[in-house]
Amino acid sequence: MVEAGTNRRIVALAGGVGGARMADGLAGLPGVDLSVIVNTADDFVLWGLDISPDLDTVLYTLAGIADPVNGWGIAGDTHATLAGLGELGVDTWFSLGDRDFATHIFRTMRRRAGIALSAITADLADALGVSTSLLPMTDDPVATRIISAGQEIEFQEYFVAHRQADVVDGVRFAGIELAEPAPGVLRAIAEADVVVFCPSNPIVSIGPILSVHGVRSAIRATPAVKVGVSPIIGGKALKGPADRMLTSLGHEATALGVARLLVDVLDVFVIDERDADLAPQIEALGLEVVVLETIMGDRADRVRFAGEVIAALMGTVRR
Amino acid sequence: MVEAGTNRRIVALAGGVGGARMADGLAGLPGVDLSVIVNTADDFVLWGLDISPDLDTVLYTLAGIADPVNGWGIAGDTHATLAGLGELGVDTWFSLGDRDFATHIFRTMRRRAGIALSAITADLADALGVSTSLLPMTDDPVATRIISAGQEIEFQEYFVAHRQADVVDGVRFAGIELAEPAPGVLRAIAEADVVVFCPSNPIVSIGPILSVHGVRSAIRATPAVKVGVSPIIGGKALKGPADRMLTSLGHEATALGVARLLVDVLDVFVIDERDADLAPQIEALGLEVVVLETIMGDRADRVRFAGEVIAALMGTVRR
Repeated sequence: MVEAGTNRRIVALAGGVGGARMADGLAGLPGVDLSVIVNTADDFVLWGLDISPDLDTVLYTLAGIADPVNGWGIAGDTHATLAGLGELGVDTWFSLGDRDFATHIFRTMRRRAGIALSAITADLADALGVSTSLLPMTDDPVATRIISAGQEIEFQEYFVAHRQADVVDGVRFAGIELAEPAPGVLRAIAEADVVVFCPSNPIVSIGPILSVHGVRSAIRATPAVKVGVSPIIGGKALKGPADRMLTSLGHEATALGVARLLVDVLDVFVIDERDADLAPQIEALGLEVVVLETIMGDRADRVRFAGEVIAALMGTVRR
Repeated sequence: MVEAGTNRRIVALAGGVGGARMADGLAGLPGVDLSVIVNTADDFVLWGLDISPDLDTVLYTLAGIADPVNGWGIAGDTHATLAGLGELGVDTWFSLGDRDFATHIFRTMRRRAGIALSAITADLADALGVSTSLLPMTDDPVATRIISAGQEIEFQEYFVAHRQADVVDGVRFAGIELAEPAPGVLRAIAEADVVVFCPSNPIVSIGPILSVHGVRSAIRATPAVKVGVSPIIGGKALKGPADRMLTSLGHEATALGVARLLVDVLDVFVIDERDADLAPQIEALGLEVVVLETIMGDRADRVRFAGEVIAALMGTVRR
């Protein structure tokens, strides 16, 4: 599958912080050409500015400037603009740092000039010295809506303003039926040696990417090995509401539950050592299972983990 | 003209830093209801944001937060967003601080929502605790263009990017023929006891205000005493290019030259002690002349000067 002397072409599908850290680990591996396809269904307009939370989290993480505690935003960023907006009576329910505002002002200015999100993202990556190919899943507008108690809520309202307190009865990706994959997405998948489903929320991070027209079938058709990493460890999400969301939507909030959701696009599933007992049931779905220490710390640890995942593929997959 | 027990109604016409400081002095006088009509022909869109340099300079000065050295921007402001834009490859030829960005983001967001500049300005003043009525000259778009060597240059390009190095052969206010006075402008002038022409550039700060449809005739028709303060002292502008601009446009770069430009809308002209020898010639134009120390320092000194101007009116004008 991989010829000697050529780089291994890896495509990663990623959402927020967990996905960004996995992508960062893959980017640190030697001999790898990495493309990251990023969820954009969380994108929204805030205070007149186009915000792409997942793209920015991946961008900042790969650039080595992400806030190490939050995972999102920029390390050491100040908040004078946000404080100023507060002084002007604006409800500052969403935190943006001063340096981060530059990204949003830049993106908004260029989008208003008719430039596609994918082109802007490539320029942002370039400016921050990120050589990984960062691909929004689509250049078209898609907006995740959370259905809770019979009402539809904007995703960021649910995620940030309500701190994910609403019970998620349903999820809808508004605009998805008209969304075409961004330039390079289908080709990266078709030409990949490995497709990695990062440990991102399977419903609202991986779900939208797979729902973009042509993406799921491209992943099913690619000769690449397809490996997923469970974002659920011991029945809990490390970060975010994936566990509660899985439960309220009728799935099992375990690595097995995630594997069931993604079984049609996976060959291999990586689970945490704490979930080793689930391996037989996941294997019974027809997937190879790899058991690893999946919690990632700093960049060195992310590279360690990514290396173990890729090495395990070489050992387990015979096609 | 002013009845005992009622506030004196003062309307000030202002452009940039000098105008803002005079307005600040007037605002500090006891028993005064102040309205400031501010030039908006310098307004422009920068990085997708609506910037109103003169309105902001007056706003920040009246709020007591203006940078004391520059006169524009906010004291102690940081520049992380600007640095971020620079990192992203944006030409950061125009300096905006982080706290200042909040003003521009707020204004842009509200204008995109269809709210008039005058209403947004009132809200900004309110949020910053400014009780003076701040009135943009118009809610309609007007843009000063500088004509130099046969070419038309955007005002901020001339003023900031070129540091006023171009020889000004002409000035044009694009859009002025369609600009209506903002709500409250004509009424404030009609009901004023005193109209003050602040020491702002007569060509590009006072000029656009007088050119808005109906403003010049309202000033000529008001029963108010109309007093101008020369922005030129000893043949030099304290700040900005007014002196060179007057010369290149064929005027005299003196208090007399400014008086000639404004003679049809003035009753009284205040000149600096250094220009006392010009008094006879200015009086020959039909104006009363008041000679004062016109250079203003801190807020106390601005109030001192404003008080002297108003007191002088009571002494000189008999109508």
